[in-house]
Amino acid sequence: MSSDLSVLLVLDLAGTFAFALNGALTAIRIVRVDIVGTVTLGMLTAMGGGILRDVLMGSLPPTTFSDYRYLVVAALGSLVAFAFARALGRFGTTIDVLDAAGLSLFAATGTAVALDFGLGAGQAVILGAISAVGGGTLRDVTVGRVPVVLTSELYAIPALSAAVLVVAASALGVYGLTAALVAAGTCFALRLAGIRFNLHAPQPRQAPRDRG
Amino acid sequence: MSSDLSVLLVLDLAGTFAFALNGALTAIRIVRVDIVGTVTLGMLTAMGGGILRDVLMGSLPPTTFSDYRYLVVAALGSLVAFAFARALGRFGTTIDVLDAAGLSLFAATGTAVALDFGLGAGQAVILGAISAVGGGTLRDVTVGRVPVVLTSELYAIPALSAAVLVVAASALGVYGLTAALVAAGTCFALRLAGIRFNLHAPQPRQAPRDRG
Amino acid sequence: MSSDLSVLLVLDLAGTFAFALNGALTAIRIVRVDIVGTVTLGMLTAMGGGILRDVLMGSLPPTTFSDYRYLVVAALGSLVAFAFARALGRFGTTIDVLDAAGLSLFAATGTAVALDFGLGAGQAVILGAISAVGGGTLRDVTVGRVPVVLTSELYAIPALSAAVLVVAASALGVYGLTAALVAAGTCFALRLAGIRFNLHAPQPRQAPRDRG
Repeated sequence: MSSDLSVLLVLDLAGTFAFALNGALTAIRIVRVDIVGTVTLGMLTAMGGGILRDVLMGSLPPTTFSDYRYLVVAALGSLVAFAFARALGRFGTTIDVLDAAGLSLFAATGTAVALDFGLGAGQAVILGAISAVGGGTLRDVTVGRVPVVLTSELYAIPALSAAVLVVAASALGVYGLTAALVAAGTCFALRLAGIRFNLHAPQPRQAPRDRG
Repeated sequence: MSSDLSVLLVLDLAGTFAFALNGALTAIRIVRVDIVGTVTLGMLTAMGGGILRDVLMGSLPPTTFSDYRYLVVAALGSLVAFAFARALGRFGTTIDVLDAAGLSLFAATGTAVALDFGLGAGQAVILGAISAVGGGTLRDVTVGRVPVVLTSELYAIPALSAAVLVVAASALGVYGLTAALVAAGTCFALRLAGIRFNLHAPQPRQAPRDRG
Repeated sequence: MSSDLSVLLVLDLAGTFAFALNGALTAIRIVRVDIVGTVTLGMLTAMGGGILRDVLMGSLPPTTFSDYRYLVVAALGSLVAFAFARALGRFGTTIDVLDAAGLSLFAATGTAVALDFGLGAGQAVILGAISAVGGGTLRDVTVGRVPVVLTSELYAIPALSAAVLVVAASALGVYGLTAALVAAGTCFALRLAGIRFNLHAPQPRQAPRDRG
């Protein structure tokens, strides 16, 4: 199991790097941040979801904050974005794929962490989704943009699917590296299909007075 | 006392439903949220105040998050708003009254929870008010609107009145279901009077350069 | 050491007053807040950084919230801003200097608190900076303004400098009142130099499509 755990840690750090890079680039694109803002918003994107999860679980200080490896990897991803923003702007698709990978890994590992901590199935699903989408949401709110996850695209639903699969695997007693990868892979496939086919979650029918 | 507690729990869950319904409808009116955004913002409105209170008290995981009844009721209220947004848009007054009821119940029960946890009188008043107005504030900030509670109307002041009454009743050793209902009733009356007579909290006199 | 500690407490409370005053005035200038909004945003500016630090450390309830002296001083500073907003608008420079003093004191004491709590050097530097800039950031996000600290000026970098000096002094075993004042003084000098000479942190080179 120890080598399995190493694999999950490496994947988690890879997700952290992807989220920091993408989060910092997104911040640069939305507002005229300086180096402080770029690094802050990259790290917030990469670590914010895990921090929200740990605060809601009462597991303080949050792992992603107290484990220096996450801090270093998140800072590094943000600095790469700062240094190469102009060049990286041309790799939109690659970065979308990296972001989908981060989303998938965080949803699976975040749910597993919540279950390990003793939370119920419903709470674990919510915390898995928060681990995955919380960082980007905090970044968007900080720069004054309505979080994309709340308005369109398939973003939270793939994360919720991965979280449900992890809870199911755990209930059946078969949670392990394979199950984590199946859950993350499902999220990844749904997210990429959403981007490729431009799928959106359903919207409410508005009241007439909002139509004008 | 057990039946008194049951009454308070039922009232608290009724307040949760009212806040989720109203919070989700408000979100739909302000931004083009999808189903994920509607449910997220409805649940944030209903549970955010209690979560802020519990984080500031250090009582983690937060009760409203770990008790599945609050999760289910908050999700239900949000889904009703999603399904019937167009129809519910016509019941503005009814929804304002429901929201005032939620405000009043959360202010009274939130203050009592803080006192039970051993906090001082000043802290309990602040946490009672945060329980009542915190969820709507988090929703407004998330969708990029300046929280209404900070700019106009009588919203925080009725909640603070209920909190002060609960602290006073507790200091006099007469806190119980009756006192909770008196405190909540006072908040409810003040809030409805504020809506009816269009009352606002006082504003600061601006510096001349802001006048133009 | 006891009198040293008293000096630090007095300085910390002075910083709290300066931040509350400046935070409330800034809020009044940005949005049409009423008395509830003025006091809320003044207190959030003064206490938000310390609360974020304590949540991330897992030291709950937060000191600035549970110690009534901080609550009273923060409320007082906000009420002074509410009462004299028009007159205080003419003292822009004085208020910038007070704000720089608050920034410097919070960066130094925030870092020391984190080290005392047993956190690592990197984490203590981050938490020192968060203590100093977190309150203003929360205020800006709440009123819908992109936090100034993320986009321009020298604001976070002076705070980080003070935090690094405190960590260095602690590692060398010479942290005390003198070291705290040297660290705070360095931050103060850098901040005032930044205002005087209009210095800004470097910005990333934007991708071409953002240039138009």
